[in-house]
Amino acid sequence: MVKIAVIGGTRGLGRWIAKFLAEKGFDVLITGRNVTDGELVSKKIGTGYTNNNSLAAETSDVVIISVPIHATPNIIKELAPLMKPGSLLMDVTSVKEESSHLMEQYAAEGVEVVPSHPMFGPRIRSLDGQVVVLTPSVDGSWYTKVYKFLEHENTRIIVTTPEIHDRMMSIVQGLTHFAYVSIAATIDRLDIDIKESRKFASPIYNLMLDTIARITAQNPYLVYSIQTSNKYIKDAHETFNETFNELKNMIADGDEEGFVHAMSNAAKHIDDLESALGRSDKAISALSEEVNILKNLVGREVGLKHIYSGKVHVGMLEELKPEFLVLKLNNSSTKLKLSNVEILTDKELKDWKINNYPLRSYDVSAVFPESADPEVVVATVQGLEGVVDAEVMDTYSGSQIPEGSISITLRYLVFDDDAVLEVEKLLKGFGCQIR
Amino acid sequence: MVKIAVIGGTRGLGRWIAKFLAEKGFDVLITGRNVTDGELVSKKIGTGYTNNNSLAAETSDVVIISVPIHATPNIIKELAPLMKPGSLLMDVTSVKEESSHLMEQYAAEGVEVVPSHPMFGPRIRSLDGQVVVLTPSVDGSWYTKVYKFLEHENTRIIVTTPEIHDRMMSIVQGLTHFAYVSIAATIDRLDIDIKESRKFASPIYNLMLDTIARITAQNPYLVYSIQTSNKYIKDAHETFNETFNELKNMIADGDEEGFVHAMSNAAKHIDDLESALGRSDKAISALSEEVNILKNLVGREVGLKHIYSGKVHVGMLEELKPEFLVLKLNNSSTKLKLSNVEILTDKELKDWKINNYPLRSYDVSAVFPESADPEVVVATVQGLEGVVDAEVMDTYSGSQIPEGSISITLRYLVFDDDAVLEVEKLLKGFGCQIR
Repeated sequence: MVKIAVIGGTRGLGRWIAKFLAEKGFDVLITGRNVTDGELVSKKIGTGYTNNNSLAAETSDVVIISVPIHATPNIIKELAPLMKPGSLLMDVTSVKEESSHLMEQYAAEGVEVVPSHPMFGPRIRSLDGQVVVLTPSVDGSWYTKVYKFLEHENTRIIVTTPEIHDRMMSIVQGLTHFAYVSIAATIDRLDIDIKESRKFASPIYNLMLDTIARITAQNPYLVYSIQTSNKYIKDAHETFNETFNELKNMIADGDEEGFVHAMSNAAKHIDDLESALGRSDKAISALSEEVNILKNLVGREVGLKHIYSGKVHVGMLEELKPEFLVLKLNNSSTKLKLSNVEILTDKELKDWKINNYPLRSYDVSAVFPESADPEVVVATVQGLEGVVDAEVMDTYSGSQIPEGSISITLRYLVFDDDAVLEVEKLLKGFGCQIR
Repeated sequence: MVKIAVIGGTRGLGRWIAKFLAEKGFDVLITGRNVTDGELVSKKIGTGYTNNNSLAAETSDVVIISVPIHATPNIIKELAPLMKPGSLLMDVTSVKEESSHLMEQYAAEGVEVVPSHPMFGPRIRSLDGQVVVLTPSVDGSWYTKVYKFLEHENTRIIVTTPEIHDRMMSIVQGLTHFAYVSIAATIDRLDIDIKESRKFASPIYNLMLDTIARITAQNPYLVYSIQTSNKYIKDAHETFNETFNELKNMIADGDEEGFVHAMSNAAKHIDDLESALGRSDKAISALSEEVNILKNLVGREVGLKHIYSGKVHVGMLEELKPEFLVLKLNNSSTKLKLSNVEILTDKELKDWKINNYPLRSYDVSAVFPESADPEVVVATVQGLEGVVDAEVMDTYSGSQIPEGSISITLRYLVFDDDAVLEVEKLLKGFGCQIR
């Protein structure tokens, strides 16, 4: 069996990877400095543990380095030379140029290097749909194995060079996130009341503010470490600074043509404007449509799902305000933030009731003309509101049943006792005698 | 009848306002320099026209100034003194401090001033839900009339001072839009392939890019005029520039604590982080959910609505790619951009078919046990897929019908002839004889 060592596998993404691979049946060994933690975690996720990195590197077929960015270079220099011929060395650092080159430089003879950047955090449940960037310098047999493994997990794989990866990330994480944090800090410094400013604003401004808030609410230490470790980010910051100042001076100096030219040029460079407008329109309307749907549901039953906890609240929509709503169930009222709930569709609400309301089973026997088809009757009963399921228990045409007639017995399951009346109304409505 | 002059009413927002007021029954006069245009437009929108601004100002009960920002001060100085006592002077300029003060300074004795900023463009259809800012200095009788008029149109009215309005707008339109344009211009200058960068990115980055694209695609002349006309914007630009540079230097100098402190402070200032995260999560998931729904519909019938044209496409979903999909109808295939269509719900699709497919009417007579209730039968038929409507035409229990039975004749409307078989299957299934 393939032996995999995850260096720094006791927490964060390393721990996630170790657990994932152990569940896939690999023989996984994690390392980490704190022995108490290491033993606890390894027990919990089903791996081995050692605090001896060298031992792990020397004895494994695959070594995955998952330590903080600033510690990565020294760990590579220390462990790469110890690895055995025919083994695979990987890292998961979010900046690729330095680690990729160091791994190739220091890896022992016969060791294959496949640098990677998994673009997700340890909160995901599977690799399905997640992006993993690989920056291998050779098309070796380990690379093929890693690729096929990821492909089988339905991962979105990007193969590129460390340089292209880092340049792209200098924009993706470096520039945009940094500019957004700067906008938030500027609003803070200008002492503008953000809540008040939303009143003046269009839906797109509100979405912009929400995105700025989201980025600014990230772990600042993580943002700092990304900003400092990618060498292309400095260039992006400087270029942004120059560009902003040039545009600012055009405004200050009244250079209309200069500004219009620069802005038009920037717009031209954008990949597919029509799609961008379409997607942002949809994102905005998704938010306003929800309010419109709720407006029509005041006084009626509504099912709402909390977007984080997943908890479902079902009740009568008593009150709808711009920021919250009040749901009434029996004698208690629940106040919910509009931004944190989504509306269940009729089907989702019915499914939820089926899973959460007590289900009761009822039998009914009715006399039909003898040409009746029990399957059609059962399908029609199943379609009634409040009925979960129905089946034919018995058909009977004996001495107690009038000539030319048949008795059909149905068993049906309801989550709402009103449905019993609906079933009876249906059968009687078609002229059947309930026995 | 109230006579309203719209100065600059031959195009843009002025034209929209003139048309809207004329449709509401007011006696509207528009002005504009180009006589040919003016006569054409006034005919089209049902107003009077003159190229003589002074004449319009002297003879109207209400004067609304809707000329480009840079022309507004001189027009105010020219027309405000000519107005008759008891009349109302308004403007619709997007920067309020200068125009509000000039209108009050230059208005003739007995003229009431109500400065306004309608926060929408001329493409809207009604005032319902739109934001209009009013910055009156007195609580006069015209102000009350304007307020009530807007309230009746379901407008969201914000009453504030010109100074607060302009300070808020310096952030809403001034800073954020300007920073976004700067980001786009920086990406352009760094020669990063935006399309390529999306591959590396999370859904939130893609939404950020879409928003940046949207802002950068605005009319650059309009952006320039807003940036230059609000005096608070200069301060916002300078403060942003300082803030960005301080943060940038913290990164360059390795000042981790300084950066973390600044970023945390900015995050604290944001009004309601939890709601912001909730809304942006919803916006993102609205986009990905749609793809997930479509994945399950490949090979099946789907209804899609183009988000701009409103055109509905119904067909079999033949192919689904990250950026487009192919819909097959009869023998032709239609390729549609995923970003520009939204999926119809089952109910919307049925409604669309009812309105667009040829409807056919059918009659059916069936023999039921005499206790049958025609209303229950008709309601059950109405619930069948493909049936639009149904009604009871006749009930009959005479010589041609067996003893103890009743004949019910239904008329029903279908958009799909398969529904005829469904109706017959239902009736026969309950043991009824079709005549």
